Amino acid sequence: MNSPLLAPVRLDGNRIFVLDETALPFREDYLEVKKLDDALWILGEMKTRSLGQVLLFFYCCALFKGSHSIDDVSAKFKQRRPTFDFLALGDILKGQIKKGMETKEAADSFISGFDALRRKRAKRLASVLSSPANILTICNINGELLYLYKELQAQGKDALFYVSETRPYLQGTRLTFWELNKNNVPSKVICDNQAARIMSEGKITCVVTGADRATVNGDVINKVGTYSLARIAKYFNIPFYPLTQYPGDIDVDNIEIEERPRKESFMYLEEDCLIDAFYPCFDITKSDFITQCIELKP
Amino acid sequence: MNSPLLAPVRLDGNRIFVLDETALPFREDYLEVKKLDDALWILGEMKTRSLGQVLLFFYCCALFKGSHSIDDVSAKFKQRRPTFDFLALGDILKGQIKKGMETKEAADSFISGFDALRRKRAKRLASVLSSPANILTICNINGELLYLYKELQAQGKDALFYVSETRPYLQGTRLTFWELNKNNVPSKVICDNQAARIMSEGKITCVVTGADRATVNGDVINKVGTYSLARIAKYFNIPFYPLTQYPGDIDVDNIEIEERPRKESFMYLEEDCLIDAFYPCFDITKSDFITQCIELKP
Repeated sequence: MNSPLLAPVRLDGNRIFVLDETALPFREDYLEVKKLDDALWILGEMKTRSLGQVLLFFYCCALFKGSHSIDDVSAKFKQRRPTFDFLALGDILKGQIKKGMETKEAADSFISGFDALRRKRAKRLASVLSSPANILTICNINGELLYLYKELQAQGKDALFYVSETRPYLQGTRLTFWELNKNNVPSKVICDNQAARIMSEGKITCVVTGADRATVNGDVINKVGTYSLARIAKYFNIPFYPLTQYPGDIDVDNIEIEERPRKESFMYLEEDCLIDAFYPCFDITKSDFITQCIELKP
Repeated sequence: MNSPLLAPVRLDGNRIFVLDETALPFREDYLEVKKLDDALWILGEMKTRSLGQVLLFFYCCALFKGSHSIDDVSAKFKQRRPTFDFLALGDILKGQIKKGMETKEAADSFISGFDALRRKRAKRLASVLSSPANILTICNINGELLYLYKELQAQGKDALFYVSETRPYLQGTRLTFWELNKNNVPSKVICDNQAARIMSEGKITCVVTGADRATVNGDVINKVGTYSLARIAKYFNIPFYPLTQYPGDIDVDNIEIEERPRKESFMYLEEDCLIDAFYPCFDITKSDFITQCIELKP
Protein backbone atom coordinates (compact mmCIF):
# COMPACT_ATOMS: atom_id res chain seq x y z
CA MET A 1 0.00 0.00 0.00
CA ASN A 2 1.70 3.16 -1.15
CA SER A 3 0.67 6.57 -2.47
CA PRO A 4 2.54 9.88 -2.66
CA LEU A 5 -0.73 11.39 -1.40
CA LEU A 6 -0.06 9.87 2.05
CA ALA A 7 2.76 12.41 2.52
CA PRO A 8 2.19 15.08 -0.12
CA VAL A 9 4.45 17.68 1.55
CA ARG A 10 8.00 16.83 2.66
CA LEU A 11 10.56 18.77 4.67
CA ASP A 12 14.06 17.98 3.38
CA GLY A 13 16.58 19.77 5.56
CA ASN A 14 15.52 23.39 5.22
CA ARG A 15 13.62 22.84 1.97
CA ILE A 16 9.86 22.20 1.66
CA PHE A 17 8.65 20.17 -1.34
CA VAL A 18 4.95 20.01 -2.27
CA LEU A 19 3.42 17.32 -4.50
CA ASP A 20 1.65 19.10 -7.38
CA GLU A 21 -1.72 17.34 -7.18
CA THR A 22 -2.98 19.13 -10.30
CA ALA A 23 -0.37 17.27 -12.39
CA LEU A 24 -1.46 13.81 -11.19
CA PRO A 25 -1.97 11.18 -12.52
CA PHE A 26 0.14 12.18 -15.51
CA ARG A 27 3.23 13.46 -13.69
CA GLU A 28 4.51 13.19 -10.11
CA ASP A 29 5.99 16.70 -9.81
CA TYR A 30 7.16 18.45 -6.65
CA LEU A 31 7.17 22.23 -6.18
CA GLU A 32 9.72 23.85 -3.88
CA VAL A 33 8.59 26.42 -1.30
CA LYS A 34 11.34 28.97 -0.68
CA LYS A 35 9.25 31.64 0.98
CA LEU A 36 5.78 31.96 2.49
CA ASP A 37 4.41 33.53 -0.70
CA ASP A 38 5.31 30.36 -2.63
CA ALA A 39 3.22 28.35 -0.19
CA LEU A 40 0.31 30.78 -0.45
CA TRP A 41 0.38 30.58 -4.24
CA ILE A 42 0.43 26.76 -4.13
CA LEU A 43 -2.50 26.81 -1.72
CA GLY A 44 -4.57 29.28 -3.76
CA GLU A 45 -4.01 27.33 -6.98
CA MET A 46 -5.02 24.10 -5.20
CA LYS A 47 -1.71 22.46 -6.09
CA THR A 48 -2.13 20.89 -2.67
CA ARG A 49 -5.24 20.54 -0.43
CA SER A 50 -6.61 18.41 2.40
CA LEU A 51 -3.73 16.68 4.24
CA GLY A 52 -1.20 18.59 2.12
CA GLN A 53 -2.40 21.97 3.34
CA VAL A 54 -2.12 20.81 6.96
CA LEU A 55 1.48 19.63 6.49
CA LEU A 56 2.35 22.75 4.51
CA PHE A 57 0.99 24.93 7.30
CA PHE A 58 3.11 23.26 10.00
CA TYR A 59 6.28 23.27 7.90
CA CYS A 60 5.79 26.96 6.98
CA CYS A 61 5.37 27.87 10.67
CA ALA A 62 8.58 25.99 11.48
CA LEU A 63 10.69 27.18 8.56
CA PHE A 64 9.62 30.82 8.33
CA LYS A 65 9.25 31.51 12.08
CA GLY A 66 11.97 34.16 11.86
CA SER A 67 9.87 36.35 9.57
CA HIS A 68 6.27 35.19 10.24
CA SER A 69 4.42 34.49 13.48
CA ILE A 70 2.09 31.47 13.69
CA ASP A 71 -0.87 33.87 13.78
CA ASP A 72 0.41 35.54 10.62
CA VAL A 73 0.77 32.22 8.77
CA SER A 74 -2.71 31.11 9.96
CA ALA A 75 -4.32 34.33 8.81
CA LYS A 76 -2.62 34.25 5.41
CA PHE A 77 -3.49 30.57 4.84
CA LYS A 78 -7.09 31.25 5.86
CA GLN A 79 -7.29 34.13 3.40
CA ARG A 80 -6.45 31.73 0.56
CA ARG A 81 -8.72 28.86 1.67
CA PRO A 82 -11.28 30.42 4.04
CA THR A 83 -13.29 27.29 4.80
CA PHE A 84 -10.52 25.23 6.42
CA ASP A 85 -9.73 25.93 10.07
CA PHE A 86 -6.10 27.08 9.93
CA LEU A 87 -6.63 29.12 13.09
CA ALA A 88 -7.30 25.91 15.05
CA LEU A 89 -4.13 24.36 13.59
CA GLY A 90 -2.21 27.43 14.75
CA ASP A 91 -3.66 26.99 18.25
CA ILE A 92 -2.49 23.36 18.36
CA LEU A 93 1.01 24.43 17.45
CA LYS A 94 1.02 27.29 19.97
CA GLY A 95 -0.18 24.88 22.66
CA GLN A 96 2.79 22.56 22.03
CA ILE A 97 5.23 25.46 22.05
CA LYS A 98 3.76 26.64 25.35
CA LYS A 99 4.63 23.19 26.72
CA GLY A 100 8.27 23.94 25.88
CA MET A 101 8.71 22.51 22.39
CA GLU A 102 10.58 24.23 19.59
CA THR A 103 8.35 25.17 16.60
CA LYS A 104 9.97 22.57 14.34
CA GLU A 105 9.82 19.89 17.03
CA ALA A 106 6.13 20.66 17.63
CA ALA A 107 5.39 20.48 13.90
CA ASP A 108 7.26 17.18 13.52
CA SER A 109 5.54 15.72 16.54
CA PHE A 110 2.10 16.67 15.21
CA ILE A 111 2.80 15.31 11.74
CA SER A 112 4.21 11.99 12.88
CA GLY A 113 1.27 11.47 15.24
CA PHE A 114 -1.19 12.38 12.50
CA ASP A 115 -0.44 9.40 10.29
CA ALA A 116 -0.87 7.01 13.21
CA LEU A 117 -4.23 8.61 14.02
CA ARG A 118 -5.35 8.23 10.42
CA ARG A 119 -4.51 4.50 10.47
CA LYS A 120 -6.50 4.09 13.67
CA ARG A 121 -9.43 6.00 12.24
CA ALA A 122 -9.43 3.74 9.16
CA LYS A 123 -9.37 0.69 11.44
CA ARG A 124 -12.35 1.95 13.46
CA LEU A 125 -14.32 2.56 10.27
CA ALA A 126 -13.41 -0.88 8.89
CA SER A 127 -14.78 -2.51 12.02
CA VAL A 128 -18.11 -0.70 11.54
CA LEU A 129 -18.56 -1.72 7.87
CA SER A 130 -20.23 -4.95 6.80
CA SER A 131 -18.91 -7.28 4.11
CA PRO A 132 -18.97 -6.89 1.17
CA ALA A 133 -18.33 -3.16 1.62
CA ASN A 134 -19.36 -1.47 -1.63
CA ILE A 135 -18.18 1.99 -0.81
CA LEU A 136 -19.15 5.16 -2.66
CA THR A 137 -16.67 7.97 -2.13
CA ILE A 138 -16.06 11.49 -3.46
CA CYS A 139 -12.97 13.69 -3.74
CA ASN A 140 -9.78 12.41 -2.14
CA ILE A 141 -8.80 11.47 1.42
CA ASN A 142 -5.03 11.27 0.84
CA GLY A 143 -4.51 7.55 0.92
CA GLU A 144 -6.74 6.85 3.90
CA LEU A 145 -8.93 4.59 1.73
CA LEU A 146 -5.81 2.44 1.26
CA TYR A 147 -5.57 2.10 5.03
CA LEU A 148 -9.29 1.32 5.11
CA TYR A 149 -8.94 -1.37 2.44
CA LYS A 150 -6.02 -2.96 4.26
CA GLU A 151 -8.04 -3.07 7.48
CA LEU A 152 -11.08 -4.49 5.71
CA GLN A 153 -8.88 -7.22 4.26
CA ALA A 154 -7.36 -7.92 7.68
CA GLN A 155 -10.91 -8.31 9.01
CA GLY A 156 -11.78 -10.71 6.15
CA LYS A 157 -14.17 -8.23 4.51
CA ASP A 158 -14.51 -7.77 0.74
CA ALA A 159 -14.49 -4.24 -0.64
CA LEU A 160 -15.21 -2.41 -3.88
CA PHE A 161 -14.90 1.36 -4.24
CA TYR A 162 -17.12 3.46 -6.49
CA VAL A 163 -15.30 6.75 -6.93
CA SER A 164 -17.38 9.80 -7.88
CA GLU A 165 -15.20 11.73 -10.32
CA THR A 166 -15.67 15.03 -8.40
CA ARG A 167 -16.02 17.78 -10.96
CA PRO A 168 -14.56 20.16 -11.78
CA TYR A 169 -11.15 19.36 -10.33
CA LEU A 170 -11.60 15.58 -10.78
CA GLN A 171 -9.93 14.66 -7.51
CA GLY A 172 -11.98 11.43 -7.58
CA THR A 173 -10.70 10.29 -10.96
CA ARG A 174 -7.21 11.78 -10.87
CA LEU A 175 -6.26 11.13 -7.26
CA THR A 176 -8.53 8.59 -5.53
CA PHE A 177 -9.08 6.14 -8.39
CA TRP A 178 -5.44 6.50 -9.32
CA GLU A 179 -4.07 5.64 -5.88
CA LEU A 180 -6.56 2.80 -5.37
CA ASN A 181 -5.87 1.31 -8.80
CA LYS A 182 -2.10 1.61 -8.39
CA ASN A 183 -2.45 -0.55 -5.27
CA ASN A 184 -4.77 -3.08 -6.95
CA VAL A 185 -7.76 -2.09 -4.85
CA PRO A 186 -11.01 -2.94 -6.74
CA SER A 187 -12.49 0.38 -7.85
CA LYS A 188 -14.63 2.00 -10.54
CA VAL A 189 -15.14 5.63 -11.45
CA ILE A 190 -18.66 7.04 -11.86
CA CYS A 191 -19.74 10.50 -12.94
CA ASP A 192 -21.12 12.59 -10.08
CA ASN A 193 -24.63 12.58 -11.55
CA GLN A 194 -24.80 8.76 -11.48
CA ALA A 195 -24.73 8.33 -7.69
CA ALA A 196 -28.51 8.25 -7.16
CA ARG A 197 -28.91 5.76 -9.99
CA ILE A 198 -26.40 3.25 -8.62
CA MET A 199 -27.68 3.65 -5.05
CA SER A 200 -31.20 2.90 -6.30
CA GLU A 201 -29.88 -0.34 -7.81
CA GLY A 202 -28.50 -1.57 -4.48
CA LYS A 203 -24.90 -1.35 -5.70
CA ILE A 204 -23.75 0.73 -2.71
CA THR A 205 -23.59 -0.43 0.94
CA CYS A 206 -22.10 2.75 2.43
CA VAL A 207 -20.77 6.23 1.63
CA VAL A 208 -17.39 7.30 3.01
CA THR A 209 -16.04 10.84 2.58
CA GLY A 210 -13.48 13.16 4.09
CA ALA A 211 -14.46 16.35 5.91
CA ASP A 212 -12.82 19.76 5.72
CA ARG A 213 -14.66 20.83 8.87
CA ALA A 214 -16.91 19.19 11.42
CA THR A 215 -18.91 20.93 14.14
CA VAL A 216 -19.85 19.83 17.64
CA ASN A 217 -23.41 19.23 16.33
CA GLY A 218 -21.98 16.63 13.96
CA ASP A 219 -22.53 18.73 10.83
CA VAL A 220 -19.85 18.34 8.20
CA ILE A 221 -18.43 20.67 5.56
CA ASN A 222 -16.73 18.95 2.66
CA LYS A 223 -16.20 19.11 -1.10
CA VAL A 224 -19.37 20.23 -2.86
CA GLY A 225 -21.38 17.14 -3.80
CA THR A 226 -20.99 15.49 -0.39
CA TYR A 227 -24.32 16.86 0.79
CA SER A 228 -26.07 15.49 -2.27
CA LEU A 229 -24.61 12.01 -1.65
CA ALA A 230 -25.64 12.14 2.02
CA ARG A 231 -29.21 13.20 1.16
CA ILE A 232 -29.68 10.47 -1.39
CA ALA A 233 -27.99 7.85 0.81
CA LYS A 234 -30.36 8.73 3.66
CA TYR A 235 -33.32 8.12 1.37
CA PHE A 236 -32.05 4.63 0.52
CA ASN A 237 -31.04 3.90 4.16
CA ILE A 238 -27.42 3.65 3.11
CA PRO A 239 -25.07 4.61 5.98
CA PHE A 240 -22.95 7.71 5.49
CA TYR A 241 -19.59 7.98 7.28
CA PRO A 242 -17.48 11.14 7.07
CA LEU A 243 -13.91 10.93 8.36
CA THR A 244 -13.73 13.94 10.64
CA GLN A 245 -11.13 15.79 12.68
CA TYR A 246 -10.91 18.72 15.06
CA PRO A 247 -14.56 19.15 15.90
CA GLY A 248 -14.67 22.56 17.55
CA ASP A 249 -17.41 24.56 19.21
CA ILE A 250 -18.31 26.10 15.89
CA ASP A 251 -21.64 26.40 14.18
CA VAL A 252 -21.82 25.96 10.41
CA ASP A 253 -23.39 29.39 10.11
CA ASN A 254 -20.13 30.97 11.24
CA ILE A 255 -17.96 29.25 8.63
CA GLU A 256 -17.21 30.99 5.37
CA ILE A 257 -17.95 28.66 2.45
CA GLU A 258 -15.38 29.34 -0.22
CA GLU A 259 -16.51 30.16 -3.74
CA ARG A 260 -13.76 29.31 -6.25
CA PRO A 261 -13.04 31.20 -9.49
CA ARG A 262 -15.66 30.40 -12.12
CA LYS A 263 -13.06 29.47 -14.70
CA GLU A 264 -12.18 26.41 -12.60
CA SER A 265 -15.61 25.00 -13.44
CA PHE A 266 -14.05 24.16 -16.78
CA MET A 267 -10.87 22.54 -15.54
CA TYR A 268 -9.78 19.70 -17.78
CA LEU A 269 -12.19 20.76 -20.50
CA GLU A 270 -11.26 22.70 -23.60
CA GLU A 271 -10.13 26.18 -22.62
CA ASP A 272 -12.44 27.86 -25.11
CA CYS A 273 -15.28 26.72 -22.90
CA LEU A 274 -14.67 29.65 -20.54
CA ILE A 275 -18.21 30.79 -19.93
CA ASP A 276 -20.42 32.03 -17.16
CA ALA A 277 -20.62 29.70 -14.23
CA PHE A 278 -21.24 29.52 -10.50
CA TYR A 279 -18.79 27.44 -8.46
CA PRO A 280 -19.48 26.92 -4.78
CA CYS A 281 -16.55 24.87 -3.56
CA PHE A 282 -17.92 23.14 -0.47
CA ASP A 283 -21.28 22.15 0.89
CA ILE A 284 -22.68 21.51 4.35
CA THR A 285 -24.04 18.12 5.34
CA LYS A 286 -26.26 18.48 8.39
CA SER A 287 -25.97 15.81 11.05
CA ASP A 288 -29.44 14.36 10.19
CA PHE A 289 -27.89 12.72 7.14
CA ILE A 290 -24.78 11.40 8.87
CA THR A 291 -24.77 7.89 10.28
CA GLN A 292 -21.65 8.38 12.38
CA CYS A 293 -18.67 10.71 12.20
CA ILE A 294 -15.50 8.60 12.25
CA GLU A 295 -13.29 10.93 14.23
CA LEU A 296 -9.55 11.34 14.25
CA LYS A 297 -8.73 10.38 17.82
CA PRO A 298 -6.28 8.10 19.60
CA MET B 1 -34.08 33.04 -31.07
CA ASN B 2 -32.07 30.66 -33.16
CA SER B 3 -30.11 27.45 -32.65
CA PRO B 4 -28.95 24.75 -35.08
CA LEU B 5 -30.17 22.30 -32.42
CA LEU B 6 -33.79 23.22 -33.28
CA ALA B 7 -33.35 21.35 -36.60
CA PRO B 8 -30.25 19.22 -36.19
CA VAL B 9 -31.03 16.93 -39.15
CA ARG B 10 -31.94 18.33 -42.59
CA LEU B 11 -33.13 16.66 -45.77
CA ASP B 12 -31.71 18.48 -48.80
CA GLY B 13 -33.11 16.88 -51.94
CA ASN B 14 -32.05 13.28 -51.57
CA ARG B 15 -29.27 14.04 -49.13
CA ILE B 16 -29.49 13.83 -45.33
CA PHE B 17 -27.21 16.10 -43.27
CA VAL B 18 -26.74 15.60 -39.54
CA LEU B 19 -25.37 18.25 -37.17
CA ASP B 20 -22.35 16.74 -35.36
CA GLU B 21 -23.31 17.60 -31.78
CA THR B 22 -20.00 16.24 -30.46
CA ALA B 23 -18.15 19.04 -32.27
CA LEU B 24 -20.22 21.84 -30.71
CA PRO B 25 -19.61 24.49 -29.49
CA PHE B 26 -16.26 24.62 -31.27
CA ARG B 27 -17.40 23.74 -34.79
CA GLU B 28 -20.79 23.56 -36.51
CA ASP B 29 -20.12 20.50 -38.70
CA TYR B 30 -22.63 18.46 -40.67
CA LEU B 31 -22.21 14.76 -41.52
CA GLU B 32 -23.79 13.35 -44.69
CA VAL B 33 -25.80 10.13 -44.49
CA LYS B 34 -25.51 8.20 -47.76
CA LYS B 35 -26.74 4.83 -46.54
CA LEU B 36 -28.49 3.44 -43.47
CA ASP B 37 -25.18 2.27 -41.97
CA ASP B 38 -23.96 5.89 -41.91
CA ALA B 39 -27.01 6.84 -39.86
CA LEU B 40 -26.49 3.91 -37.48
CA TRP B 41 -22.86 4.88 -36.92
CA ILE B 42 -23.86 8.51 -36.24
CA LEU B 43 -26.48 7.31 -33.77
CA GLY B 44 -24.16 4.89 -31.97
CA GLU B 45 -21.44 7.53 -31.62
CA MET B 46 -24.00 10.01 -30.25
CA LYS B 47 -23.18 12.50 -33.01
CA THR B 48 -26.89 13.21 -32.78
CA ARG B 49 -29.45 12.39 -30.05
CA SER B 50 -32.83 13.52 -28.72
CA LEU B 51 -34.71 15.46 -31.45
CA GLY B 52 -31.96 14.66 -33.96
CA GLN B 53 -32.47 10.91 -33.67
CA VAL B 54 -36.22 11.34 -34.25
CA LEU B 55 -35.66 13.39 -37.41
CA LEU B 56 -32.95 11.01 -38.61
CA PHE B 57 -35.28 8.06 -38.15
CA PHE B 58 -38.04 9.60 -40.28
CA TYR B 59 -35.67 10.74 -43.03
CA CYS B 60 -33.99 7.31 -43.15
CA CYS B 61 -37.38 5.60 -43.48
CA ALA B 62 -38.26 7.95 -46.35
CA LEU B 63 -34.93 7.89 -48.18
CA PHE B 64 -33.99 4.23 -47.84
CA LYS B 65 -37.48 2.72 -48.20
CA GLY B 66 -36.38 0.85 -51.34
CA SER B 67 -33.90 -1.23 -49.37
CA HIS B 68 -35.18 -1.09 -45.76
CA SER B 69 -38.68 -1.50 -44.33
CA ILE B 70 -39.82 0.79 -41.50
CA ASP B 71 -39.64 -2.18 -39.12
CA ASP B 72 -36.09 -2.85 -40.24
CA VAL B 73 -35.03 0.78 -39.62
CA SER B 74 -36.81 0.80 -36.22
CA ALA B 75 -35.12 -2.41 -35.13
CA LYS B 76 -31.68 -1.26 -36.23
CA PHE B 77 -32.07 2.16 -34.57
CA LYS B 78 -33.28 0.48 -31.38
CA GLN B 79 -30.26 -1.80 -31.40
CA ARG B 80 -27.96 1.23 -31.29
CA ARG B 81 -29.93 3.22 -28.68
CA PRO B 82 -32.13 0.68 -26.87
CA THR B 83 -33.80 3.06 -24.41
CA PHE B 84 -35.55 5.33 -26.93
CA ASP B 85 -38.84 4.09 -28.39
CA PHE B 86 -38.06 3.87 -32.12
CA LEU B 87 -40.71 1.15 -32.51
CA ALA B 88 -43.41 3.66 -31.50
CA LEU B 89 -42.04 6.16 -34.04
CA GLY B 90 -42.25 3.45 -36.69
CA ASP B 91 -45.87 2.82 -35.75
CA ILE B 92 -46.70 6.52 -36.14
CA LEU B 93 -45.20 6.49 -39.60
CA LYS B 94 -46.98 3.26 -40.59
CA GLY B 95 -50.26 4.74 -39.36
CA GLN B 96 -49.87 7.76 -41.66
CA ILE B 97 -48.98 5.55 -44.61
CA LYS B 98 -52.08 3.42 -43.96
CA LYS B 99 -54.09 6.65 -44.31
CA GLY B 100 -52.72 6.92 -47.86
CA MET B 101 -49.61 9.09 -47.43
CA GLU B 102 -46.30 8.43 -49.17
CA THR B 103 -43.44 7.64 -46.74
CA LYS B 104 -41.68 10.94 -47.44
CA GLU B 105 -44.92 12.92 -47.17
CA ALA B 106 -45.71 11.22 -43.83
CA ALA B 107 -42.23 11.97 -42.52
CA ASP B 108 -42.43 15.64 -43.62
CA SER B 109 -45.86 16.01 -42.10
CA PHE B 110 -44.71 14.58 -38.78
CA ILE B 111 -41.60 16.72 -38.64
CA SER B 112 -43.33 20.01 -39.51
CA GLY B 113 -46.02 19.34 -36.93
CA PHE B 114 -43.43 18.46 -34.31
CA ASP B 115 -41.90 21.92 -34.09
CA ALA B 116 -45.33 23.51 -33.65
CA LEU B 117 -46.09 21.06 -30.84
CA ARG B 118 -42.81 21.88 -29.11
CA ARG B 119 -43.62 25.60 -29.19
CA LYS B 120 -47.03 24.90 -27.67
CA ARG B 121 -45.49 22.70 -24.99
CA ALA B 122 -43.04 25.47 -24.06
CA LYS B 123 -45.95 27.92 -23.86
CA ARG B 124 -47.92 25.64 -21.54
CA LEU B 125 -44.91 25.26 -19.28
CA ALA B 126 -44.29 29.02 -19.24
CA SER B 127 -47.83 29.62 -18.06
CA VAL B 128 -47.28 27.22 -15.14
CA LEU B 129 -44.03 28.83 -13.92
CA SER B 130 -43.92 31.73 -11.51
CA SER B 131 -41.73 34.82 -11.89
CA PRO B 132 -38.79 35.00 -11.46
CA ALA B 133 -38.27 31.52 -12.89
CA ASN B 134 -34.86 30.32 -11.74
CA ILE B 135 -34.73 27.13 -13.74
CA LEU B 136 -32.31 24.28 -13.13
CA THR B 137 -31.91 22.06 -16.19
CA ILE B 138 -29.74 19.12 -17.29
CA CYS B 139 -28.63 17.80 -20.67
CA ASN B 140 -30.15 19.44 -23.76
CA ILE B 141 -33.71 19.82 -25.05
CA ASN B 142 -32.79 20.99 -28.57
CA GLY B 143 -33.69 24.64 -28.34
CA GLU B 144 -36.96 24.19 -26.48
CA LEU B 145 -35.61 26.29 -23.58
CA LEU B 146 -35.33 29.15 -26.09
CA TYR B 147 -39.05 28.77 -26.84
CA LEU B 148 -39.67 28.63 -23.09
CA TYR B 149 -37.69 31.81 -22.47
CA LYS B 150 -39.51 33.64 -25.27
CA GLU B 151 -42.86 32.62 -23.79
CA LEU B 152 -41.78 33.63 -20.28
CA GLN B 153 -40.79 37.04 -21.65
CA ALA B 154 -44.11 37.35 -23.49
CA GLN B 155 -45.85 36.65 -20.17
CA GLY B 156 -43.74 39.30 -18.42
CA LYS B 157 -41.83 36.74 -16.36
CA ASP B 158 -38.12 36.96 -15.55
CA ALA B 159 -35.96 33.89 -16.07
CA LEU B 160 -32.47 32.64 -15.25
CA PHE B 161 -31.22 29.20 -16.25
CA TYR B 162 -28.78 27.15 -14.17
CA VAL B 163 -27.41 24.52 -16.54
CA SER B 164 -26.01 21.33 -14.99
CA GLU B 165 -22.98 20.48 -17.12
CA THR B 166 -24.12 16.85 -17.62
CA ARG B 167 -21.05 14.67 -17.44
CA PRO B 168 -19.56 12.89 -19.22
CA TYR B 169 -20.79 14.15 -22.58
CA LEU B 170 -21.26 17.73 -21.31
CA GLN B 171 -24.47 18.35 -23.23
CA GLY B 172 -25.37 20.96 -20.60
CA THR B 173 -22.23 23.02 -21.10
CA ARG B 174 -21.59 22.40 -24.78
CA LEU B 175 -25.13 22.50 -26.11
CA THR B 176 -27.63 24.04 -23.66
CA PHE B 177 -25.49 26.81 -22.22
CA TRP B 178 -24.12 27.50 -25.68
CA GLU B 179 -27.52 27.95 -27.33
CA LEU B 180 -28.91 29.97 -24.43
CA ASN B 181 -25.89 32.24 -24.27
CA LYS B 182 -25.81 32.74 -28.07
CA ASN B 183 -29.36 34.08 -27.75
CA ASN B 184 -28.56 36.29 -24.74
CA VAL B 185 -30.67 34.24 -22.36
CA PRO B 186 -29.40 34.69 -18.77
CA SER B 187 -27.70 31.42 -17.83
CA LYS B 188 -24.95 29.93 -15.68
CA VAL B 189 -23.28 26.53 -15.78
CA ILE B 190 -22.92 24.47 -12.60
CA CYS B 191 -21.19 21.13 -12.08
CA ASP B 192 -23.62 18.25 -11.61
CA ASN B 193 -22.58 17.74 -7.98
CA GLN B 194 -23.54 21.33 -7.06
CA ALA B 195 -27.29 21.00 -7.60
CA ALA B 196 -28.22 20.09 -4.02
CA ARG B 197 -26.11 22.94 -2.70
CA ILE B 198 -27.76 25.63 -4.84
CA MET B 199 -31.24 24.24 -4.20
CA SER B 200 -30.57 24.39 -0.46
CA GLU B 201 -29.72 28.08 -0.86
CA GLY B 202 -33.07 28.89 -2.45
CA LYS B 203 -31.47 29.76 -5.79
CA ILE B 204 -33.77 27.44 -7.80
CA THR B 205 -37.55 27.84 -8.26
CA CYS B 206 -38.10 24.85 -10.58
CA VAL B 207 -36.37 22.01 -12.42
CA VAL B 208 -37.11 21.50 -16.14
CA THR B 209 -35.74 18.52 -18.08
CA GLY B 210 -36.41 16.60 -21.27
CA ALA B 211 -37.52 12.97 -21.24
CA ASP B 212 -36.39 10.13 -23.47
CA ARG B 213 -39.38 8.07 -22.40
CA ALA B 214 -42.45 8.59 -20.27
CA THR B 215 -44.89 5.93 -19.11
CA VAL B 216 -48.64 6.06 -18.49
CA ASN B 217 -47.88 6.07 -14.75
CA GLY B 218 -46.05 9.34 -15.25
CA ASP B 219 -42.58 7.87 -14.66
CA VAL B 220 -39.85 9.37 -16.78
CA ILE B 221 -36.60 8.01 -18.20
CA ASN B 222 -34.02 10.63 -19.06
CA LYS B 223 -30.29 11.36 -19.03
CA VAL B 224 -28.67 9.92 -15.93
CA GLY B 225 -28.67 12.60 -13.23
CA THR B 226 -32.31 13.56 -13.78
CA TYR B 227 -33.49 11.25 -11.01
CA SER B 228 -31.02 12.77 -8.58
CA LEU B 229 -32.27 16.29 -9.39
CA ALA B 230 -35.89 15.20 -8.97
CA ARG B 231 -35.20 13.54 -5.61
CA ILE B 232 -33.41 16.55 -4.21
CA ALA B 233 -35.97 18.98 -5.65
CA LYS B 234 -38.77 17.03 -3.96
CA TYR B 235 -37.00 17.38 -0.62
CA PHE B 236 -36.86 21.16 -1.04
CA ASN B 237 -40.43 21.37 -2.41
CA ILE B 238 -39.10 22.64 -5.70
CA PRO B 239 -41.41 21.69 -8.60
CA PHE B 240 -40.00 19.33 -11.21
CA TYR B 241 -41.32 19.49 -14.78
CA PRO B 242 -40.15 17.01 -17.43
CA LEU B 243 -41.07 17.77 -21.04
CA THR B 244 -42.57 14.47 -22.17
CA GLN B 245 -43.83 12.89 -25.36
CA TYR B 246 -45.46 9.64 -26.53
CA PRO B 247 -46.56 8.27 -23.21
CA GLY B 248 -47.36 4.66 -24.08
CA ASP B 249 -48.79 1.79 -22.08
CA ILE B 250 -45.31 0.80 -21.00
CA ASP B 251 -43.97 0.09 -17.59
CA VAL B 252 -40.44 1.23 -16.74
CA ASP B 253 -39.53 -2.36 -15.87
CA ASN B 254 -39.91 -3.32 -19.54
CA ILE B 255 -37.55 -0.66 -20.87
CA GLU B 256 -33.91 -1.49 -21.44
CA ILE B 257 -31.71 1.15 -19.82
CA GLU B 258 -28.69 1.63 -22.05
CA GLU B 259 -25.22 1.31 -20.59
CA ARG B 260 -22.71 3.25 -22.68
CA PRO B 261 -19.08 2.27 -23.24
CA ARG B 262 -16.99 2.97 -20.15
CA LYS B 263 -14.43 4.96 -22.11
CA GLU B 264 -17.08 7.65 -22.66
CA SER B 265 -16.95 8.39 -18.93
CA PHE B 266 -13.75 10.22 -19.77
CA MET B 267 -14.99 12.25 -22.71
CA TYR B 268 -13.39 15.68 -22.84
CA LEU B 269 -10.75 14.67 -20.31
CA GLU B 270 -7.21 13.64 -21.11
CA GLU B 271 -7.22 10.40 -23.07
CA ASP B 272 -4.67 8.77 -20.79
CA CYS B 273 -7.37 8.76 -18.14
CA LEU B 274 -8.90 5.62 -19.68
CA ILE B 275 -9.59 3.62 -16.56
CA ASP B 276 -12.22 1.35 -15.12
CA ALA B 277 -15.63 2.93 -14.90
CA PHE B 278 -19.34 2.19 -14.85
CA TYR B 279 -21.53 4.32 -17.09
CA PRO B 280 -25.28 3.91 -16.88
CA CYS B 281 -26.63 6.28 -19.49
CA PHE B 282 -30.16 7.02 -18.28
CA ASP B 283 -32.06 6.91 -15.04
CA ILE B 284 -35.69 6.49 -14.08
CA THR B 285 -37.58 9.21 -12.24
CA LYS B 286 -40.67 7.73 -10.62
CA SER B 287 -43.84 9.80 -10.77
CA ASP B 288 -43.69 10.57 -7.00
CA PHE B 289 -40.98 13.10 -7.70
CA ILE B 290 -42.63 14.71 -10.71
CA THR B 291 -44.79 17.78 -10.22
CA GLN B 292 -46.39 17.60 -13.66
CA CYS B 293 -45.35 16.10 -16.98
CA ILE B 294 -45.57 18.82 -19.64
CA GLU B 295 -46.71 16.71 -22.55
CA LEU B 296 -46.26 17.17 -26.25
CA LYS B 297 -49.84 17.54 -27.40
CA PRO B 298 -51.85 19.90 -29.60
